[in-house]
Amino acid sequence: VRVEPTTLEFLARLAGGVVVGDATTTIRSAWPLADVQPQCVTLVEDAKRGHHAASLGAGAIVVREPIDGLSLPQLVVRDPHAAFAAIVTWFRPPCDRGPEGIHSSARIDPSALLGEQCAIAAGASIGAAVRVGSRCRIHANVVVMDGCVIGDEVTLMPGVVLYPNTVLEDRVWIHAGSVIGAFGFGYRTRQGVHTRAAQLGYAHIEQDVEVGACVTIDRGTYGTTRIGRGTKIDNQVMIAHNCQIGPNNLICSQVGIAGSCRTGEGVILAGQVGLKDHVTLGPRTIVGAQAGVMNDLDGDAVYLGSPATTQRTQMQIFASQQRLPEMRKTMKQLQQAIDGLQSQLVALSEADDPHAEPVKAA
Amino acid sequence: VRVEPTTLEFLARLAGGVVVGDATTTIRSAWPLADVQPQCVTLVEDAKRGHHAASLGAGAIVVREPIDGLSLPQLVVRDPHAAFAAIVTWFRPPCDRGPEGIHSSARIDPSALLGEQCAIAAGASIGAAVRVGSRCRIHANVVVMDGCVIGDEVTLMPGVVLYPNTVLEDRVWIHAGSVIGAFGFGYRTRQGVHTRAAQLGYAHIEQDVEVGACVTIDRGTYGTTRIGRGTKIDNQVMIAHNCQIGPNNLICSQVGIAGSCRTGEGVILAGQVGLKDHVTLGPRTIVGAQAGVMNDLDGDAVYLGSPATTQRTQMQIFASQQRLPEMRKTMKQLQQAIDGLQSQLVALSEADDPHAEPVKAA
Amino acid sequence: VRVEPTTLEFLARLAGGVVVGDATTTIRSAWPLADVQPQCVTLVEDAKRGHHAASLGAGAIVVREPIDGLSLPQLVVRDPHAAFAAIVTWFRPPCDRGPEGIHSSARIDPSALLGEQCAIAAGASIGAAVRVGSRCRIHANVVVMDGCVIGDEVTLMPGVVLYPNTVLEDRVWIHAGSVIGAFGFGYRTRQGVHTRAAQLGYAHIEQDVEVGACVTIDRGTYGTTRIGRGTKIDNQVMIAHNCQIGPNNLICSQVGIAGSCRTGEGVILAGQVGLKDHVTLGPRTIVGAQAGVMNDLDGDAVYLGSPATTQRTQMQIFASQQRLPEMRKTMKQLQQAIDGLQSQLVALSEADDPHAEPVKAA
Repeated sequence: VRVEPTTLEFLARLAGGVVVGDATTTIRSAWPLADVQPQCVTLVEDAKRGHHAASLGAGAIVVREPIDGLSLPQLVVRDPHAAFAAIVTWFRPPCDRGPEGIHSSARIDPSALLGEQCAIAAGASIGAAVRVGSRCRIHANVVVMDGCVIGDEVTLMPGVVLYPNTVLEDRVWIHAGSVIGAFGFGYRTRQGVHTRAAQLGYAHIEQDVEVGACVTIDRGTYGTTRIGRGTKIDNQVMIAHNCQIGPNNLICSQVGIAGSCRTGEGVILAGQVGLKDHVTLGPRTIVGAQAGVMNDLDGDAVYLGSPATTQRTQMQIFASQQRLPEMRKTMKQLQQAIDGLQSQLVALSEADDPHAEPVKAA
Repeated sequence: VRVEPTTLEFLARLAGGVVVGDATTTIRSAWPLADVQPQCVTLVEDAKRGHHAASLGAGAIVVREPIDGLSLPQLVVRDPHAAFAAIVTWFRPPCDRGPEGIHSSARIDPSALLGEQCAIAAGASIGAAVRVGSRCRIHANVVVMDGCVIGDEVTLMPGVVLYPNTVLEDRVWIHAGSVIGAFGFGYRTRQGVHTRAAQLGYAHIEQDVEVGACVTIDRGTYGTTRIGRGTKIDNQVMIAHNCQIGPNNLICSQVGIAGSCRTGEGVILAGQVGLKDHVTLGPRTIVGAQAGVMNDLDGDAVYLGSPATTQRTQMQIFASQQRLPEMRKTMKQLQQAIDGLQSQLVALSEADDPHAEPVKAA
Repeated sequence: VRVEPTTLEFLARLAGGVVVGDATTTIRSAWPLADVQPQCVTLVEDAKRGHHAASLGAGAIVVREPIDGLSLPQLVVRDPHAAFAAIVTWFRPPCDRGPEGIHSSARIDPSALLGEQCAIAAGASIGAAVRVGSRCRIHANVVVMDGCVIGDEVTLMPGVVLYPNTVLEDRVWIHAGSVIGAFGFGYRTRQGVHTRAAQLGYAHIEQDVEVGACVTIDRGTYGTTRIGRGTKIDNQVMIAHNCQIGPNNLICSQVGIAGSCRTGEGVILAGQVGLKDHVTLGPRTIVGAQAGVMNDLDGDAVYLGSPATTQRTQMQIFASQQRLPEMRKTMKQLQQAIDGLQSQLVALSEADDPHAEPVKAA
């Protein structure tokens, strides 16, 4: 952590922007709004938050467009996120050196093949017949079991476990605590006793996939569970055996995907979504948080609710549900009105002909 | 991985089946439909998929009943899953040797007792007064804390953690990253400050239970959290303190069971189900995905929805929900029809007696 | 485990209570009702359960108020939980010694600073520039990455991973398998390809926080993800980047909190609740199990359902949903009644004037 302060002018040169206000202002640090401190510069994405930043005591702000009538000096830049990232990095340069070389306590089976410039940290285990590409970083206490195949520039954060025969392509990044290739939840049941199905497949994760922390991706029964290139998976996601996840999907936290599901390119699943087994989602399907998908869905559309339906229908259903108690009241009133009308009719028909029977309802 | 090809005839002898079509067909590998490759044999469970296999370029299929009019050679067997498993195993014999003996980097407390032929892998820790049965396989970086009691032929996959005094009976299998016997989420709150309740119990897992990856099963407050014999638990399931789970249950991924719940024999909980604390489920209760169980449920029945109700009722509720927007429209039309009738009645009664007051509704 | 039996009188002295019934009764152990054994003492919190305890064969019970007409001897105490905890501890003294000193296989970077009387167990890794306070217990295979700052009397259970720069204040307790400070799920998407956002922040956990097993708390983008003092977090909870969780919250199992949420003091989130990103909950907000919070909520109130609404409204909605199928039937009956009335009206108006046109509805 850097302790000496600087000027806003210096940061403007660093980030490639223009100062509106006093460029000689002293800046001691850089923090987002939630952590604002005196004499720090902060990021303002929404012009309405400019005065909020001032009231919190920030020393200056980074913005895309200058905000009128603001007492704080402003650093105006084309890409505020990139600029703020550069400034934060200047004040707090990342201190993570990561592993270097092969630690003496790493256990590497003699039959494993390692590429150039791999780092393997303390307590990591590399099993028999494993192949690892070049420039991989395998952190502390990772376990790579027998027969795994790992591409170049793969990062496995601490405690990751790869079951036997897992395949990771280039630049895959897996966060701590995730388990790839464990057994699928498949059993044959006879007379109430469950016997495990075949576990002869493996998990295959294509290039540029990022997998969050504490994720589980099970192996296929006979072949692959596959995650398509460029797909990003958040923490605590569960992907079951035989799934074929398409490329460039975004799968948010705590999503559960049952066995043998398929997704197309660019699918987005929001938090806590569940997919029934054998469901197929078309390209660019978007499913809202907590939805439960029971059937195949066409792509290029948004779905909500459990069971999931189109956004348009589900928004109407949600709105109607909010009015359900009122609807029940209205129904009672309608019933009363009908009873009243019935009485009036009887009275009227009797007045018309006191001796006649009232007309029967159809 | 075996690279030399063989003939379909050879595979028929291996798997005990009959070839319909050209038995001399060359087969290079065996893959499920999702991973089909040229000249490979694939499994067809549903006759409709036979032509799909052909269109994907498979070289032959394994089926129970021959499919008429199919251009592909067919290997007809009584149990296609068993046959296909044998064939896949021939082409890709499992390469997982697993741990053997006791690794020099395993830390075993001198007071621990190990049975015969146990394998304890690198980086595993066995605490004080632990007892382990015979032929157990304890994989890399497993932590068995003080006082645990483990039966025969137990398998603990990499990174499993057993808190003190956990009991595992024979043939229990726990997958990577699971934590058994952690503290229950029980607090006493005074003036807004939470103080931890007693944590004097433990987790007791009966024989033949399989526990998936990243599962958490908390200890009892004073006694057991118990998982009944033969029960199978999928990844990322949470079972809270004091639960008494019955035998031969199937508990799917991401299910959450709050404290002190009980289930009977053969209960099935689908993915992402939640159980409120102190709920009891009768034998063979089945609860559908994402359902929320708020009350005790009778066994031998299927329940859906949140709050969970019987399948029959919930299917009607789901269907009605889909029609809620339409119901709201219909109600407005009914209101208009009633208003219309009211006007007609007024007109009629006035026509009947122009000077009379209209009859009042009851 | 203690094997010699004792008398109820001895336990009454131990726990500070009075015996109603035979104080010379032999007691061999202490178990909760779910685990009751002959000649054991058990805890009865609810007077109705007293006869249940007798029928299960318990030897005596611990109660707050004596139960009339019960054949079992009773140990009457002011605080039955505290008394029962003392008795259970006497029969089964906790055997967990925990780690002591610094194990030879622990890897501690030379630049790390450790306080007094810290225990660091086998296989643990302490990274560069880490600072650890006094009397901390760091269990087996924990990984503390570079630049972390840890207060006094912190406990990290086996396998916990702290990403670089994580801050833990005094008396924080983190259970096995949890991952603190992993990357936030933030990407910029251009032409369908996702690029990771800045990961320059860290996780800051204030004093007296307890974090369950397999929890994930991501780092902030530029600053903190913060957990307020005294907050308790159950297993498998997910807290995303930039969240600011207030003090003394209770966050139950499998809750998912999306990015940049804020909660006030004393908030309670029940199991499997989901919060949309950027949501703010007022102090003492209570959210029921499986609810989905889409908007800011005022404090001092209870909310249920997905989307979450006030308890009062949601209970009415739940009740109405149960009656939805019935409501649809009623609507059909109303329609029929209206049709009947319409026919009657037509008949009546024709009877009134056989040649006249029926009155038109308004």
